[in-house]
Amino acid sequence: MLAGDLYAFQDLLSDDEAAVVERVRAFLDDEVVPIANDHWQRADFPMHLIKRYAGLGIAGREGSSSLLNGWLALEMARADASMATFYGVHAGLAMGSITMCGSPEQQERWLPAMTAFEKVGAFALTEPTGGSDVAAGLRTTARREGDEWVLDGEKRWIGNATFAGLIVVWARDETDNQVKGFVVRGDAPGFEATKIENKIALRTVQNADIRLTGVRVPEADRLQNANSFKDTAKVLRQTRSGVAWEAVGVMLAAYEIALNYSKDREQFGRPIAKFQLVQDLLVRMLGNVTGALGMCVRLAQLQDEGQYRDEHSALAKAYCTTRMREVVGWARELLAGNGIVLDYNIGRFVADAEALYSYEGTREINTLIVGRAITGESAFV
Amino acid sequence: MLAGDLYAFQDLLSDDEAAVVERVRAFLDDEVVPIANDHWQRADFPMHLIKRYAGLGIAGREGSSSLLNGWLALEMARADASMATFYGVHAGLAMGSITMCGSPEQQERWLPAMTAFEKVGAFALTEPTGGSDVAAGLRTTARREGDEWVLDGEKRWIGNATFAGLIVVWARDETDNQVKGFVVRGDAPGFEATKIENKIALRTVQNADIRLTGVRVPEADRLQNANSFKDTAKVLRQTRSGVAWEAVGVMLAAYEIALNYSKDREQFGRPIAKFQLVQDLLVRMLGNVTGALGMCVRLAQLQDEGQYRDEHSALAKAYCTTRMREVVGWARELLAGNGIVLDYNIGRFVADAEALYSYEGTREINTLIVGRAITGESAFV
Amino acid sequence: MLAGDLYAFQDLLSDDEAAVVERVRAFLDDEVVPIANDHWQRADFPMHLIKRYAGLGIAGREGSSSLLNGWLALEMARADASMATFYGVHAGLAMGSITMCGSPEQQERWLPAMTAFEKVGAFALTEPTGGSDVAAGLRTTARREGDEWVLDGEKRWIGNATFAGLIVVWARDETDNQVKGFVVRGDAPGFEATKIENKIALRTVQNADIRLTGVRVPEADRLQNANSFKDTAKVLRQTRSGVAWEAVGVMLAAYEIALNYSKDREQFGRPIAKFQLVQDLLVRMLGNVTGALGMCVRLAQLQDEGQYRDEHSALAKAYCTTRMREVVGWARELLAGNGIVLDYNIGRFVADAEALYSYEGTREINTLIVGRAITGESAFV
Amino acid sequence: MLAGDLYAFQDLLSDDEAAVVERVRAFLDDEVVPIANDHWQRADFPMHLIKRYAGLGIAGREGSSSLLNGWLALEMARADASMATFYGVHAGLAMGSITMCGSPEQQERWLPAMTAFEKVGAFALTEPTGGSDVAAGLRTTARREGDEWVLDGEKRWIGNATFAGLIVVWARDETDNQVKGFVVRGDAPGFEATKIENKIALRTVQNADIRLTGVRVPEADRLQNANSFKDTAKVLRQTRSGVAWEAVGVMLAAYEIALNYSKDREQFGRPIAKFQLVQDLLVRMLGNVTGALGMCVRLAQLQDEGQYRDEHSALAKAYCTTRMREVVGWARELLAGNGIVLDYNIGRFVADAEALYSYEGTREINTLIVGRAITGESAFV
Repeated sequence: MLAGDLYAFQDLLSDDEAAVVERVRAFLDDEVVPIANDHWQRADFPMHLIKRYAGLGIAGREGSSSLLNGWLALEMARADASMATFYGVHAGLAMGSITMCGSPEQQERWLPAMTAFEKVGAFALTEPTGGSDVAAGLRTTARREGDEWVLDGEKRWIGNATFAGLIVVWARDETDNQVKGFVVRGDAPGFEATKIENKIALRTVQNADIRLTGVRVPEADRLQNANSFKDTAKVLRQTRSGVAWEAVGVMLAAYEIALNYSKDREQFGRPIAKFQLVQDLLVRMLGNVTGALGMCVRLAQLQDEGQYRDEHSALAKAYCTTRMREVVGWARELLAGNGIVLDYNIGRFVADAEALYSYEGTREINTLIVGRAITGESAFV
Repeated sequence: MLAGDLYAFQDLLSDDEAAVVERVRAFLDDEVVPIANDHWQRADFPMHLIKRYAGLGIAGREGSSSLLNGWLALEMARADASMATFYGVHAGLAMGSITMCGSPEQQERWLPAMTAFEKVGAFALTEPTGGSDVAAGLRTTARREGDEWVLDGEKRWIGNATFAGLIVVWARDETDNQVKGFVVRGDAPGFEATKIENKIALRTVQNADIRLTGVRVPEADRLQNANSFKDTAKVLRQTRSGVAWEAVGVMLAAYEIALNYSKDREQFGRPIAKFQLVQDLLVRMLGNVTGALGMCVRLAQLQDEGQYRDEHSALAKAYCTTRMREVVGWARELLAGNGIVLDYNIGRFVADAEALYSYEGTREINTLIVGRAITGESAFV
Repeated sequence: MLAGDLYAFQDLLSDDEAAVVERVRAFLDDEVVPIANDHWQRADFPMHLIKRYAGLGIAGREGSSSLLNGWLALEMARADASMATFYGVHAGLAMGSITMCGSPEQQERWLPAMTAFEKVGAFALTEPTGGSDVAAGLRTTARREGDEWVLDGEKRWIGNATFAGLIVVWARDETDNQVKGFVVRGDAPGFEATKIENKIALRTVQNADIRLTGVRVPEADRLQNANSFKDTAKVLRQTRSGVAWEAVGVMLAAYEIALNYSKDREQFGRPIAKFQLVQDLLVRMLGNVTGALGMCVRLAQLQDEGQYRDEHSALAKAYCTTRMREVVGWARELLAGNGIVLDYNIGRFVADAEALYSYEGTREINTLIVGRAITGESAFV
Repeated sequence: MLAGDLYAFQDLLSDDEAAVVERVRAFLDDEVVPIANDHWQRADFPMHLIKRYAGLGIAGREGSSSLLNGWLALEMARADASMATFYGVHAGLAMGSITMCGSPEQQERWLPAMTAFEKVGAFALTEPTGGSDVAAGLRTTARREGDEWVLDGEKRWIGNATFAGLIVVWARDETDNQVKGFVVRGDAPGFEATKIENKIALRTVQNADIRLTGVRVPEADRLQNANSFKDTAKVLRQTRSGVAWEAVGVMLAAYEIALNYSKDREQFGRPIAKFQLVQDLLVRMLGNVTGALGMCVRLAQLQDEGQYRDEHSALAKAYCTTRMREVVGWARELLAGNGIVLDYNIGRFVADAEALYSYEGTREINTLIVGRAITGESAFV
């Protein structure tokens, strides 16, 4: 049981699921945690680990419960939010798009290689001019020419894109003005991905600015069941709940780091864990963790029951990432000066939390999604 | 389904339990809500309702799940935190003490009349000088004289005490210095309860200052299984989780009031629900409600599984009441000026939240209980 | 020096000003504080004190600095926010309207009696349907008939209105659609003021719902220099800064109450002032007080230098009342259970803070006023 | 006037002082801002700038008011918190120690070269084991041998220490157990400074772990008026107020960045400055800036009047850095994804804020310093 799982939420997993979780946790503790700070510092992706993820047998696993999927996102983020993001982009956004919007033939054609991590996936929706206004503001165009489509435009923030084999690109059909999905190969002529440098968060993730210049995609590579932005939104709904789970993972990591530090560090002749002001920080953290975990667990049940709506995942994403930001701040505070040195681990989580807070819909956008659902009034503009 | 139950937590109740909840909710909506502001305003208890609670068949109900018990506390507080407190003192603290610390004979002797609300219970632990320092600071004494005990001392804040038939009084045995429990009749000579006037919160609850002057209690009325403060603490552990549920109920009420107001109230030619700043308040509320509910539901599972420890209920009490305070503040803010008039309902919840925040252990005390459990270090002094 | 004035801001007053402040403080401590809870509890105005305010010689005082005026508002609110509001409505809103928008003849005609508190003033701007949308939403009409105006409409929340002699009523001229100001006598035919009952805040203030039915006002009683809502706004700008000062006064009171309690109250064998969690609350309070006071002092300088704009007072009002709400909450928390009994004083300040937070422009409206000034973009609708 | 100086606090400077400020601001905008992100990214100090600081004529300037000194710290931090820290360590901590604790002869011997930045100063107080417990926990020893002292021990976090010419080292005299100050040359045998790598904040500042192994210092280089920790504390008192000013500078930078971004960035067909949720963030920032500035200005007056006590600077340090942390978080949030790329500037301020929050006394320690002063009770242990 994790130190921050005071209410033993892990016990809600079945024995089989718990075994998967323990296996993944062991892998992360053994292979990801030890290298995380170094790669983060150098903004370098650990390419050697990609194949190791295949060995875990979790991507594309049939019939996984939402609780297991969520908990795995938690574990990955607890080890390294960058690697959790790598995985979320690949298995959630890219494979998820193909699963939800691809034809059976397309699924058979692409998913096995992605399950085996022979092809890494990416997901290209966001554009430089339209972060939040993703539906109406989409400017990348798709023009049909016979059996092919020609894509032109720019994308921004596309994770994994510098080395991905398959990139799901969303573009507006010039004819009917609808948003459609296209699976573009990473080596397609006219496709150019430029790594975004100078990040202060998720530095291990390779985000790219993408330029599409007359990229030609066969009709067979257009996602056959993605007919409008509504279909794109289904994918986002799914992955937003994943970010909520990742936020819990980050909180759990921060809590553990802070708790351990408080027991080890002495001041005034006693461990700082004995000071009321320190216990106050720890207990605030634990409250946030526990509430967020309770929310995510229920969300997973709604997902499995098919009751799941956009506002459910939007609320979880906004709430859990907000609480996470508090938690990493308190943990950093507790470590005082040492909290700003990567070696004490908390620094990376503080920094990465900022990316999680903003990606997959800012707090503002998710607030307005929930707000519209509960009031019946749209307040986006 | 309640408006604020976005994640449909109510669906976790069994059909039988849901039926009980619906019945109690209907009673509360019909008989408690309409009179709540008036009694609150006059600081007067609705004596006529006591017998109506018996008709609900919920106090002393055999084999209720912790989830049902918690949800009922939620419903009561959603209607009126004062009446929820009345019930919590009677069924939780007083009947709970007898159930947990009384002999079978004592249970048989007292519980039926309490189940029928023929005798209302009270629970006298807190003293004027020792709110938080309840264990070591307890000064009320019990002196054994033959088959009787003589109680002397003062208690403060004792809910229901002005009209209770049976008051569970905790006192320190002068001989062995242990805290023991005594069931005192409301009409016992030497027992004097003086209503606390001028409250700004839970005004309907009749709290009393109690003076015990040589009150004589037969040994048969000493709770036979209450041998030290540890036994008292078991009762508190149970009722603290009840307060967490009540806090959720208060949040749900505040959210509903605010949501409805936002749809009805127009400014600048449109319902204020259409303003981003208003949706922001509503969604923050809803996040708090959902996280707190997720925490309480898991807590109930731990209770039923017997895994339940002091730190579990202390965390829930501290966290949910903290979140509640934010929620009622945002709701009051949303109603602007109208929020300070009782008729708009939110005012009562804002005021009552302050009492819930402090009773059954302040945030500080509950923080230190959790802090001790997670760090292994006591920081009380 | 007040306990909460750690940075000795009071020393910025001139000797003469300090003498006035000390005289007013003594009056408040002697005559207002002792009766404040009782009148609040009974929602009753202490009519006997009105004349005593005249004796202070502060209303209508020529050439007072803004710093002195602000500090006096602070002192009054530190004693009782209700009486500060009574004074603010009379001297700030009503006398201020006449000073800023009346002709010299009108000033001479009305101000002396108001300075002497022979006539108490009120200010009727807010309407039932337009709390925040006060400019465009104003529905009360003024129709010119020869030398007279006929006023029709409804007002809400009008402080002092049940006993005021002169009420400044703002109405829309049916002819040119501009908002104009009229001084209405309290006994004018067609003027009806109904006290708002069941308030949970500023209970001593007598707020009224007003109905104006064909109230006839001579042209000579129309404020000659109030030609549009812009002139009304000038008055509001002035009084908003007064509310910021009042918020500081409330914070100072709450801090003192909490500090004194922390030294007196013992738990675990020592004054609670010795606990880290208690010092944390006190120091957070003191930070808020000091920052808010620094803001108000600079605001007063801007006022006296004539550099004062709407966004200056809007920011102070929003910021100081937000900080105040935190401070009273922390103070109440520190007093635990005793904090909900009026006799310990903090309860009244907690309750009253809610009214200050919302009146004279909610946080939301003041935010949008500042937001427009700094961004150049209006976001009201 | 700076965009965030809504209340025109800058006007409180004299004309001469304002000219100095403008000159320094121009230097910072021209020479520091353009290189700040690059050096930060590479964790490299811009050695070429050191001499440029001498040209500003501000270090060691006679008779500067505290307001000017504070405002200069503000300006430096607004440009780059790292360079502000470099300057604060040199001119505040190191030169300040010599000014406050050195004999006239020592001042004449060292200060001219430091004023000219020919010698850069450092200040070695903190130790690996005693961050907060700096007085009682000091373990570095000084042993007198004839006309020399022999220093042994370890220091941590010492800014500028990798290239400083003169390091003020605080050590405990083995004979009388008092803390004394020694000026150690950077090239002294036995003095070893190792740069702390992998920082996530103030990366441009060269902090070092220092090892002192039998470093010999002539008695003439012992600060003659530093006789106990109380003298050290005087220096800290002074520099803590400097950190409060730096926090204001960071807030001002963050506010400007966010404001400009909100006007430039369009979403949903309009600048995001037009959205209520964005104005809300901006106005919250501005409130914090204005309150903190008001506090710092008053603090400067107290300093110049000689009324200045430890609790004054401790409160300002704790309060302003707490508010700063909120402000940089809101600004980062407003920039969404772009907020995590250094090129948009806010990222650096977010990161650096964490160091300011913890150095020169954590929030906890400064809280307890204030708490002791106001309650008369020490709660450190």
